[in-house]
Amino acid sequence: MSVDDALAGARTALERCDALATLSARAGRIDRFYLTPEHAAANTLAASWMHEAGMSTWTDAVGNVCGRLEGATNGLPALLLGSHLDTVPDAGRYDGPLGVVVAVAVAERLRDRMPSMPFALEVVGFSDEEGTRFGAALMGSRGLAGTWDHAWWDQVDDVGVTLREAFAAFGLRPEAVGDAARDPGSLVGYLESHIEQGPHLEAADLPLGVVRAIAGARRFSLRVVGEARHAGGTPYARRRDALIGASRAVIDVERIARAEGVVATVGSMQVHPGAVNVVPGRADFTLDLRSEHDTDRDRAWSLIADAISTHCSERGLTFEATETHHAPAVAMDPVLRRAIDAGVRATTGEQEPMVLASLAGHDAMAVAAVTPVAMQFVRCHDGISHHPDESVRGDDVALAIDAFEAAVLTVASAYENVVEA
Amino acid sequence: MSVDDALAGARTALERCDALATLSARAGRIDRFYLTPEHAAANTLAASWMHEAGMSTWTDAVGNVCGRLEGATNGLPALLLGSHLDTVPDAGRYDGPLGVVVAVAVAERLRDRMPSMPFALEVVGFSDEEGTRFGAALMGSRGLAGTWDHAWWDQVDDVGVTLREAFAAFGLRPEAVGDAARDPGSLVGYLESHIEQGPHLEAADLPLGVVRAIAGARRFSLRVVGEARHAGGTPYARRRDALIGASRAVIDVERIARAEGVVATVGSMQVHPGAVNVVPGRADFTLDLRSEHDTDRDRAWSLIADAISTHCSERGLTFEATETHHAPAVAMDPVLRRAIDAGVRATTGEQEPMVLASLAGHDAMAVAAVTPVAMQFVRCHDGISHHPDESVRGDDVALAIDAFEAAVLTVASAYENVVEA
Repeated sequence: MSVDDALAGARTALERCDALATLSARAGRIDRFYLTPEHAAANTLAASWMHEAGMSTWTDAVGNVCGRLEGATNGLPALLLGSHLDTVPDAGRYDGPLGVVVAVAVAERLRDRMPSMPFALEVVGFSDEEGTRFGAALMGSRGLAGTWDHAWWDQVDDVGVTLREAFAAFGLRPEAVGDAARDPGSLVGYLESHIEQGPHLEAADLPLGVVRAIAGARRFSLRVVGEARHAGGTPYARRRDALIGASRAVIDVERIARAEGVVATVGSMQVHPGAVNVVPGRADFTLDLRSEHDTDRDRAWSLIADAISTHCSERGLTFEATETHHAPAVAMDPVLRRAIDAGVRATTGEQEPMVLASLAGHDAMAVAAVTPVAMQFVRCHDGISHHPDESVRGDDVALAIDAFEAAVLTVASAYENVVEA
Repeated sequence: MSVDDALAGARTALERCDALATLSARAGRIDRFYLTPEHAAANTLAASWMHEAGMSTWTDAVGNVCGRLEGATNGLPALLLGSHLDTVPDAGRYDGPLGVVVAVAVAERLRDRMPSMPFALEVVGFSDEEGTRFGAALMGSRGLAGTWDHAWWDQVDDVGVTLREAFAAFGLRPEAVGDAARDPGSLVGYLESHIEQGPHLEAADLPLGVVRAIAGARRFSLRVVGEARHAGGTPYARRRDALIGASRAVIDVERIARAEGVVATVGSMQVHPGAVNVVPGRADFTLDLRSEHDTDRDRAWSLIADAISTHCSERGLTFEATETHHAPAVAMDPVLRRAIDAGVRATTGEQEPMVLASLAGHDAMAVAAVTPVAMQFVRCHDGISHHPDESVRGDDVALAIDAFEAAVLTVASAYENVVEA
């Protein structure tokens, strides 16, 4: 492939990210959440690209959009390529979508070679990775992996709609959710291309990296309860101000996480009743805790919970914690990781591609429950992600498509050898 | 009046508070905000009670519901009695409404004596005292006092509706707002009965108190701006977490206010984008600052602003403050205050009624710009206010009606002497 063709492919991929960015619940920013009209529109658009690439397409039972190219014979196990189409609130345009459009570009390139391929090729645009709407992350990939949690059904979004109701409104049937689960025997593995969402590749002046492991994440809904009282009439001695308790908790979280070498974030905070002239009676906030090593993360949580409990009880406040997400760290499959590594080497000429642990979670974590997984990272500017300023370079995207294609071909060779052996 | 009659009057007053409590934007709690359907319904209900008391009724140009009994001759200046009908979110049922129903009860009692009264008697149910919907407090009473602020027109509520739009939707005309302003010559004064919203009367085992002054309040919208980034991929060195800055601000506010002997409350906090897996890029929160002495309050604000600015700049965050409300402390009119004192003494038998400063704001603060004002306080349980558990005793309400009636008659005697002199 010529450099011009590669850059044209990258341009198409970036234009597709731009097109997805217009599918948002709010004009002027990107808000695309699970089981919304924007989700349906993104699926339709992605399916149209898959169709152009010669794929048969469908939406699975949890709302993932899927496309398939058959291999040498019909019905072979499939190598899955993909990433997610949902976003955080006020998102950038590459976290997720870039991996989907790179996967579609690779399928398009390999279309004519499929009759000689030892597996089918599928592209998946996962429906929920961020967990923005219902709090639980990786719902799309957990549906595919067969690890759907039926405790989710009664979780509600911001306006009180349950997951069950949202399913029905999207045209999905809760009772059919098991149909999304893939049989391990029908799969070869899963490869994902994703922006790094961190500063390391750019700092090392490298376009691509190889992922070693995905950090284990735990997420909690935290609540401090005090008593709502009049802001004027209530002397300090009578106050049990929930926001002061929650604010101390935010400070505790950072102090302990830094000391323990893990990463912790309080990303949201709601204060009730939330009026300028009322002492807060309740504060609800979230905690996201990550480490490449599950034991470090769990020790940090234990210290954080103790510190918040102590501060709250000193002030007559109560503290409650509910775990909403718990994912162990996931190591990449050695064989697939070598294929990613080979693709990056062949494309960039680097003899020793940079190997990174991902502190961000990815669909690959969930998919690992049903088939081997590996990932490549693409440099993003200044490590900015989950923000409108997220950006990537066109030449990096061209290399990402080339490397991802090479990785697929490397997996094909290895798989052929295994099948023939 | 017999004890039984007094208790029956109190029962009616409490039943009216219960009836108002059902007029809410949300079932199961009390949310009654300015220019909403609930506001219209509360006005209609209050007007029906005024009508039963023989009053002519109208809604003024800023949505206050008003009723009038003429005095000895038609068109005499009016003594205003009243309080407000709007609420904080998830409110109690007595803050505001009790003062309106007590005023109606007194008008009903004095109805037959009006032909010999030296002034007309009016009852006002103010439309906005809390400032819940548009941030600025006392909009109803400032409309009546002729101190409406035209900078308010473009302020928006939670869902982006401007005050101007809300006016039109309620059937009011922004260009007619000046019609609500009362001519000082048409007024004798303003008396307000209100629950204490503090613990002092209950602690002293007293049903009623006399207000000395209303604390000056300043309110600010505060904002800390950092940068939204991915919660996993962003190392601590790269973070500019707006919520950590805001949390330190909440701690600073309490520390400084206690040291300076003022009362400060951060009642609301919004975090943007507000997702579990995104480092907060912006935190918006409010500050309410009160003191009986304006200089103490202003010194505390200066120290608070300095402390927050220092903490924020240490972390690469920016801090912005916008003042949304600024009311100086207001002393009660000596003559009207003596009338309130006389009413409490006559009713309770106390020789030295308790005199209190109100740290809570009241419509009387705004009305003081156009006519003399005074207030009586009614004991509430445990000082709880701005909370569903707000409660009053029936026998206290009976005394409050008696005392308020006696205060009006005392004003009538004093006024007659002045007019005759």
